[in-house]
Amino acid sequence: MCEANVYMLDKDGRHTLILESVDKVIPLGNEILLENIFSQRKTVKAQIKEMALVEHKIILVDFES
Amino acid sequence: MCEANVYMLDKDGRHTLILESVDKVIPLGNEILLENIFSQRKTVKAQIKEMALVEHKIILVDFES
Repeated sequence: MCEANVYMLDKDGRHTLILESVDKVIPLGNEILLENIFSQRKTVKAQIKEMALVEHKIILVDFES
Repeated sequence: MCEANVYMLDKDGRHTLILESVDKVIPLGNEILLENIFSQRKTVKAQIKEMALVEHKIILVDFES
């Protein structure tokens, strides 16, 4: 399966796992809707910083950073 | 491998393949930098509309749409 883990990168350079095994990523204005393969959903006020799909990683940052 | 194909969705609802086997997706202002597993790079003036990773699909739209 090709889902990814979604992390929030904070101002101190730390990565916090937000949701794992994410399938759908849908930006909605200044929020991002995440849905994983278990149908868990999370909406995060953030923007996408970088996606590395082969590493199964999506990095988000706060809008302010 | 878990790369995705990146498509542009136009105003008529048509999907055009922009780059296949994309690994890295990096938003840069109003552009998106794509890099695939063959180290091909493309920069597209677009925003992410939706990603469906299990289907290996990333859909972009024009900023104006």
